[in-house]
Amino acid sequence: MCRWLAYSGSPIRLEELLVKRDRSLIDQSLHSRQGATTTNGDGFGVGWYGDDETPRVYRSTHPAWNDRNLREVAAGISSPLFFAHIRASTGTAIQETNTHPFRYGRWLWMHNGLIREFAQVKRELVLAIDDSLYTSIEGTTDSEAMFYLALTFGLEDDPVRALERTVGLIEETGAKHGIGLPIQMTVATTNGRTIWAFRYSSEGNSRSLYFSTRMDALKALYPESAELAGLSDETRVVVSEPLGDLAGAWNEVPESHVGIVQPGIDELRPFTPTR
Amino acid sequence: MCRWLAYSGSPIRLEELLVKRDRSLIDQSLHSRQGATTTNGDGFGVGWYGDDETPRVYRSTHPAWNDRNLREVAAGISSPLFFAHIRASTGTAIQETNTHPFRYGRWLWMHNGLIREFAQVKRELVLAIDDSLYTSIEGTTDSEAMFYLALTFGLEDDPVRALERTVGLIEETGAKHGIGLPIQMTVATTNGRTIWAFRYSSEGNSRSLYFSTRMDALKALYPESAELAGLSDETRVVVSEPLGDLAGAWNEVPESHVGIVQPGIDELRPFTPTR
Amino acid sequence: MCRWLAYSGSPIRLEELLVKRDRSLIDQSLHSRQGATTTNGDGFGVGWYGDDETPRVYRSTHPAWNDRNLREVAAGISSPLFFAHIRASTGTAIQETNTHPFRYGRWLWMHNGLIREFAQVKRELVLAIDDSLYTSIEGTTDSEAMFYLALTFGLEDDPVRALERTVGLIEETGAKHGIGLPIQMTVATTNGRTIWAFRYSSEGNSRSLYFSTRMDALKALYPESAELAGLSDETRVVVSEPLGDLAGAWNEVPESHVGIVQPGIDELRPFTPTR
Amino acid sequence: MCRWLAYSGSPIRLEELLVKRDRSLIDQSLHSRQGATTTNGDGFGVGWYGDDETPRVYRSTHPAWNDRNLREVAAGISSPLFFAHIRASTGTAIQETNTHPFRYGRWLWMHNGLIREFAQVKRELVLAIDDSLYTSIEGTTDSEAMFYLALTFGLEDDPVRALERTVGLIEETGAKHGIGLPIQMTVATTNGRTIWAFRYSSEGNSRSLYFSTRMDALKALYPESAELAGLSDETRVVVSEPLGDLAGAWNEVPESHVGIVQPGIDELRPFTPTR
Repeated sequence: MCRWLAYSGSPIRLEELLVKRDRSLIDQSLHSRQGATTTNGDGFGVGWYGDDETPRVYRSTHPAWNDRNLREVAAGISSPLFFAHIRASTGTAIQETNTHPFRYGRWLWMHNGLIREFAQVKRELVLAIDDSLYTSIEGTTDSEAMFYLALTFGLEDDPVRALERTVGLIEETGAKHGIGLPIQMTVATTNGRTIWAFRYSSEGNSRSLYFSTRMDALKALYPESAELAGLSDETRVVVSEPLGDLAGAWNEVPESHVGIVQPGIDELRPFTPTR
Repeated sequence: MCRWLAYSGSPIRLEELLVKRDRSLIDQSLHSRQGATTTNGDGFGVGWYGDDETPRVYRSTHPAWNDRNLREVAAGISSPLFFAHIRASTGTAIQETNTHPFRYGRWLWMHNGLIREFAQVKRELVLAIDDSLYTSIEGTTDSEAMFYLALTFGLEDDPVRALERTVGLIEETGAKHGIGLPIQMTVATTNGRTIWAFRYSSEGNSRSLYFSTRMDALKALYPESAELAGLSDETRVVVSEPLGDLAGAWNEVPESHVGIVQPGIDELRPFTPTR
Repeated sequence: MCRWLAYSGSPIRLEELLVKRDRSLIDQSLHSRQGATTTNGDGFGVGWYGDDETPRVYRSTHPAWNDRNLREVAAGISSPLFFAHIRASTGTAIQETNTHPFRYGRWLWMHNGLIREFAQVKRELVLAIDDSLYTSIEGTTDSEAMFYLALTFGLEDDPVRALERTVGLIEETGAKHGIGLPIQMTVATTNGRTIWAFRYSSEGNSRSLYFSTRMDALKALYPESAELAGLSDETRVVVSEPLGDLAGAWNEVPESHVGIVQPGIDELRPFTPTR
Repeated sequence: MCRWLAYSGSPIRLEELLVKRDRSLIDQSLHSRQGATTTNGDGFGVGWYGDDETPRVYRSTHPAWNDRNLREVAAGISSPLFFAHIRASTGTAIQETNTHPFRYGRWLWMHNGLIREFAQVKRELVLAIDDSLYTSIEGTTDSEAMFYLALTFGLEDDPVRALERTVGLIEETGAKHGIGLPIQMTVATTNGRTIWAFRYSSEGNSRSLYFSTRMDALKALYPESAELAGLSDETRVVVSEPLGDLAGAWNEVPESHVGIVQPGIDELRPFTPTR
């Protein structure tokens, strides 16, 4: 099982949430608790927005905890919106092009979960990807195929609808092949301004997904951090598993819902796959 | 432009032809002469047959000349049939799954050249690959797609015919997209007993391909090598560029031909793409 | 905490003990139980003897469980004597030159444990290394420094005495710097014919070390293995932690002892650091 | 032979000089002209200053031209002072800890050249390094040893004097061992505000070193660059080989001199090794 984190708010150094503390994302990759897999050592990726619309992506196949360049980059870069993902492969090759977050234009995408029996349905799903997008696919994962399906179904215009159609297609295709529970997922995607975070599974028992609803709770979690103390009240962290143990800091996203982090008021909406 | 070498004959240590001498394949990767690309530093792979029918493959994205593990493996392994390939990427990602030789069952495959405007024709070519083979594709190169097309067209039964159909399809598909000269290639493939080495290009001006026709010439090339001195007369080396400068050691394969290295008498046959 | 395995006996494929089974060394690296560190993902090395006196070494900084080349090499190589080591760094850089086993001439060396406060005593210890050996040091670990000290003190002539002097020096140097318990170790070393396996710590509470004393026990552990079934009765496996749960398969080496696996009768001798 | 570049002036994206153009440092690494070595594919490093006094360092053992993370980092980071170095190993291991620039505190260091017969003199030189600095050494190169000697001799207080003593010691030690021409170097070092660039060799025939003395010349070299057009007149680039062919853009540093790039007026001073 993978782990991921999405951050939006006052610009901070990536290392604040990824590296520095005992309960950072990298620390989690060494000592996981809620994950299905003991160790998340199959690569790490971070995508961040700077001055451009195009996000930058650093991806490595080394374990996050022993990648020095990651520490340097995380210390040297501040960003108001970034994604980070730690991979535990469910079978596909350990290579940078299979490492999240994936990027297309100004969009980032990351996924925890899987399309079950992907080998059986891969060809049919990939055929549904728009011809103009097809050659941008660089890796071989189910997660990247989902991203390109979502782009095909209009991710750039209406992300919730695009993902509802994507998941609908995956469930329909799985059913056709006799696969009982075709999909398990939490997904985060962003255009650099808004973050959409989805929680869904065919079995209605999805992997976990949490929002930090109030900055005061996060500040209490890390009282020693001068940098966190200065964060705006609109700052949000979305995570596959909570960082730290503080009660009240994290709100769980309900089953079959999507949370939307955006300027102004955040939203929580039901998520219903469609065809 | 890539470089490759195929060896068949008395078992020798891989290092004899890959590492040891001034004019080894690795030395060529540092100081190329006939190649279109100055440097071949985008990865290296070697595939060899041992006690099993299944060949073993070692592939790395580091330059061959500074990969210590390659030197150790090449020194520690003897084989009667092996392939080696040094990559100069024509654009696709530098990752192990894009590194030659490719393997399927007991077959190995390696390629020097390219499918021109591959992005335009990739989807159509990949669609022609048999459904049962599709999910075994691990990388994103034109070379691997050719391999799976050849498997689809019966490589395991009749390699020459399978490659004639593969190249025919590539030329037909290229023509449909207005691509003038769709393919440039030398290809080597083997089932562990016979080696087929193809030389072909749409323009009738293919990259070079050489056979060492007589072992006495190869022995003269490396008089200092006790190991080469003991090689059988059936031993053959097939290369994209000659090793060393000795006149008479190497016979060039003519345009649009395939050379077949096999127990008994080798063959040289015309190669004619078909539909 | 690292993990290691040493094998001596009938030639077998490395993969038999490293890769193939649920309780192989690589499986241990994912799911450790007795180790002080949860995960052993900081690199992997294997050294093996073939036709030469000089062993070959394959070392990687990727986690053993996701290194494809390791699986290929382990499947493609048979050896009558090999070492394998999985690293959990205690602080020094993750790089191939810090990865065990270390090699000098025909000797291999691997270590689980540490020299405590190594930064304080490193210079003094390194100064004790013979001038002719000094420039062969390639990495920065305490483990490699111990190897070169042992070589300085006559490892090639009398390994037990050389290691008693090495550990004596480390304890003396540590004491001079006020370090209470200077060393914790299990060490294996070999010249390609005999294996010496040491268990010692300043606190008299050393990390674990086990011998497979009787092949019939090991065969019972893996009844499904045709390859193990054919192993000679002299075959031995020495491990930092037992493979599998079978009672009777493994004998623990006592505190402050060295076990010697050799042609004929194995030995178990007390180990007493000296100055 | 290595290649390097040092930049000081108006903050620019690293990619402007490292990646973007035909005559960038990375392009040079593929197609070298003045270098002694044909290819510079043994690793790449970049060190840059941001908000902190401590510079950040990204180092990789992959060839610069095929390292995607390098391109992302170079596109995502702007800096007013950065170093970049492309390595062609003269024999020591290809590993991140042997890759320039080296860092100590807020200092960076990079070197093109070598200490001749380093294996013979290494122990003696390393012994001269201050005890408090010794354990910070992470790699095995002559270049890093020079850096720690310079730190021992007062680099942080008087860089020119410290390097004169360092080179003096290297020449004295070489002479003692009968080495005719102990050192060949261009070296750049910085504390984040001033850059010192040294050119010296025992034979008085040193590798090349150039300054861009006037920004108008550099702007003429890249007229298409909007970013360069906005650079201040104090902006300077120091390089081992000129970028581009424009006459007048580059001034060669004379033999046995040091150039100092600093706020206000730059300096050019003679460099005389001392004991």
